[in-house]
Amino acid sequence: MQTLKERIISDGYVIGSDILKVDSFINHQVDTKLLDELGSYFASKFTGVTKILTIEASGIAFGVGVASHFGYVPMVFAKKSKSKIVDEKNLYTTVVDSFTKGTTNTVSVDRRFLTKEDRCLIVDDFMAEGNAALGLIDLCKQAGATVVGVAIVIEKGFQGGRKKVEAKGIRVESAAIVDHFENGKAVLR
Amino acid sequence: MQTLKERIISDGYVIGSDILKVDSFINHQVDTKLLDELGSYFASKFTGVTKILTIEASGIAFGVGVASHFGYVPMVFAKKSKSKIVDEKNLYTTVVDSFTKGTTNTVSVDRRFLTKEDRCLIVDDFMAEGNAALGLIDLCKQAGATVVGVAIVIEKGFQGGRKKVEAKGIRVESAAIVDHFENGKAVLR
Repeated sequence: MQTLKERIISDGYVIGSDILKVDSFINHQVDTKLLDELGSYFASKFTGVTKILTIEASGIAFGVGVASHFGYVPMVFAKKSKSKIVDEKNLYTTVVDSFTKGTTNTVSVDRRFLTKEDRCLIVDDFMAEGNAALGLIDLCKQAGATVVGVAIVIEKGFQGGRKKVEAKGIRVESAAIVDHFENGKAVLR
Repeated sequence: MQTLKERIISDGYVIGSDILKVDSFINHQVDTKLLDELGSYFASKFTGVTKILTIEASGIAFGVGVASHFGYVPMVFAKKSKSKIVDEKNLYTTVVDSFTKGTTNTVSVDRRFLTKEDRCLIVDDFMAEGNAALGLIDLCKQAGATVVGVAIVIEKGFQGGRKKVEAKGIRVESAAIVDHFENGKAVLR
């Protein structure tokens, strides 16, 4: 999506060798107009979606922006817990490693909010190794829900996440793809 | 707001003596149509807002819903850290106790995203003792930002939060107020 690509070039910055920071418009301060445009963009890519599924915290804003363009379907966000011990009786749970934060979280969704009737679009702000998306796909599988696809704001194209998701027969759409980093700048495809 | 009140009566439930759960439409599964109506409701209550300020994670969805009705102003969410030691050089920080969770978090906003030019509407899904709102007001004060008001989805009217915020000369608007709990049900004003 052209607007997003231009914004990454103008306002994104790189720390270390491979962390793209977009905290002025995506995941700390949120440009809600851009969010709405992203929702519109992804509504043109997928159909038959009855639920948006994402992961707290930074996926939530994008999830709302997308849901409004799919006729205000419900949006569910999986909750993170540092503990590996979660009362699983009423929950679907899975374990997600975060590339960016170097953490491992147990992630859960209440069984009432994910069912075999749901046709889910999984959304997130970033995809690197694909662990969050794969975790959310696993939750859908446990619930018997259908995964319509995965919608990502910014994909790091060199970290293999897309391949892993597509290997499960699930379509991935990204609004921008970082091809590589060069001299402290993100080079987009 | 009538729609919200009816929804609390039909889908909310109480655990223990004083925890109102609204996880099927507010803070785990989110009814994004209701969110949009809440945004419209609060846009009729406040004017001159240039930024929405909230706190992760459950304030984010509501923040986006509200921002779209104020001409898509930016939405900033304060970040939580369990640690009391946060590198404060680039951050405004404050400490917030959570009534519901029994936790204490250091909460922070990057100094780039809160300035003396900002006219902030502080929003959150719940207000009990008012600690989150007071923390966000403190961040605004540190930045020299103006607080236009505080917008709350569900206020627990018997826990004193409103009084503490109004004592600072700041207006509070809530879409629903729980007066008290009776026989395991929330009684709304």
